[in-house]
Amino acid sequence: MPKTLTTDEAAARLLAEDDILLLTHRRPDGDTNGCAAALCLALRAVGKRTFVAQNPGVTARYTDMLAPLWPEEGFRPRFVAAVDIADAQLIPPEFSAYGAVRLNVDHHPSNTLFAEETLLDASCGACGEIVLDLVAALGAPLTRDIAQALYIAVATDTGCFRYSNASARTLRAAAACLDAGVKAGPLNRIYFETKTRARCRLEGYVFENMRFAKGGALAAVAIPRALLDELGATDDDIDSIASLPRQVEGVEMAITAIGLRAGGSKVSVRTGEGYDASAFCRRFGGGGHLRASGCELDETPERAAELLLAAAQE
Amino acid sequence: MPKTLTTDEAAARLLAEDDILLLTHRRPDGDTNGCAAALCLALRAVGKRTFVAQNPGVTARYTDMLAPLWPEEGFRPRFVAAVDIADAQLIPPEFSAYGAVRLNVDHHPSNTLFAEETLLDASCGACGEIVLDLVAALGAPLTRDIAQALYIAVATDTGCFRYSNASARTLRAAAACLDAGVKAGPLNRIYFETKTRARCRLEGYVFENMRFAKGGALAAVAIPRALLDELGATDDDIDSIASLPRQVEGVEMAITAIGLRAGGSKVSVRTGEGYDASAFCRRFGGGGHLRASGCELDETPERAAELLLAAAQE
Repeated sequence: MPKTLTTDEAAARLLAEDDILLLTHRRPDGDTNGCAAALCLALRAVGKRTFVAQNPGVTARYTDMLAPLWPEEGFRPRFVAAVDIADAQLIPPEFSAYGAVRLNVDHHPSNTLFAEETLLDASCGACGEIVLDLVAALGAPLTRDIAQALYIAVATDTGCFRYSNASARTLRAAAACLDAGVKAGPLNRIYFETKTRARCRLEGYVFENMRFAKGGALAAVAIPRALLDELGATDDDIDSIASLPRQVEGVEMAITAIGLRAGGSKVSVRTGEGYDASAFCRRFGGGGHLRASGCELDETPERAAELLLAAAQE
Repeated sequence: MPKTLTTDEAAARLLAEDDILLLTHRRPDGDTNGCAAALCLALRAVGKRTFVAQNPGVTARYTDMLAPLWPEEGFRPRFVAAVDIADAQLIPPEFSAYGAVRLNVDHHPSNTLFAEETLLDASCGACGEIVLDLVAALGAPLTRDIAQALYIAVATDTGCFRYSNASARTLRAAAACLDAGVKAGPLNRIYFETKTRARCRLEGYVFENMRFAKGGALAAVAIPRALLDELGATDDDIDSIASLPRQVEGVEMAITAIGLRAGGSKVSVRTGEGYDASAFCRRFGGGGHLRASGCELDETPERAAELLLAAAQE
């Protein structure tokens, strides 16, 4: 029977163990990476031997923070913990050899309690908020390095405090990190203001090729696979491109059709209040959230965008 | 001799006066508008008769907040206060009939102490941080409406906490506003994620037409006046467009030449650390800040961008 722990109980558990390996989730983002780095540094500060497992999906911008914490040759974990992982399926398959997760620290409402014990607070916008308290409960100092990892965690998971999951607690957690000496300006520039050339060209294409309907309440854009290949766009570049047409003043429903490598299209639908993206996408065999859903169609992006645009106009 | 006041002294001064008119600066932004609205509501909460002067430059997104606070017919101020105004020249000329500013609340390091008395804290990223404390010193409650005006003030002046002027105090001020019931998500969408169609097309043009040099460290783009006119781009749409090419990975100096209505070009230069934009622009009769400067040339945007790009390559 999986058990949930309080922050103090989770700290006590970690303090009772040693040779601790910390796992991050697949396609690791700033929250899972930052939490793992912060917890690792805090545990070391209280005398533990601990490392962050080398996630094969780590992107360049997180390598400086994580590479120094990857396991040294011959390290054999005696206790495996995870951060920001909602479900066992989100553990990278490369980590399966490490065995069961004994303790998981997470903030996802959908957490399946897959670990032996879980410190879960689903009211937190970022897992970093929980880890900030855990660092204190461990009796570790909030050094600048720990604070920087936690700042990256809370800032990246809330779109630099822009999304609705950024709460007063999120902002105060970030404030505590700045008090500890973090310089947020340069970090924000790296994480929120730097775009690859491919991403810029892609944004340019979207903004130049959007079509509107229903007096501007509907926007649709089709991105051909050939363009993505020509630009050398990575999944990171393509990620979140669907939110762009929704940023246009007056747009209540945005349809973005992206050509898939294998042929066909992935269509993302983003809606404002009063429009159910999930119900709309289910008509095309897809689904998702109320404001952000998607479906896959065996059509070119142009044709897929046309089809959904026509359906949406009804 | 102008005098600076503490927060408590400024509160005492306001509490001793009545029929208070609050002034905002030219081309009013979220900080001056939000501070004026918040201070007005707080003064009313402690029994004062007070209004916010109707600034002719107020843009649509601030009208809902401010219009209910504009002076009623026949109101004659007996005490004029200002918020977020660094210099008397930044007072809209329409306000000159109101006479001297008795009290100014500001955060600009460049404040000229033009008012009779000034509450100045140049360490604040946003003037809203000072007004938050002033509201408390007045003994007014932090109602949701006051908090919302202050949230808008601190968020807009720090790029939603992204710029380097966002400090721990800024984040805690915003947290206090959320505690008072402000829903930040929908506000952030309005203020930070909504773009006019003209702005989108303009961004598209910039991203599609940037040229690079010096292995990608230099970027330049020319925006013809004809395009701006065709799109119906407003000054708001054009504002901050110069920061776009600097967002491209690897770009250390960005040159943006924009065609002026009267002919010729305005060129904006944005640089990373180690490059002096101001010294560079002085060579062309311009100047400004270390990282953000500009100049005007009697050339087409294309030619102006070419000239500066060639000079920068030296």
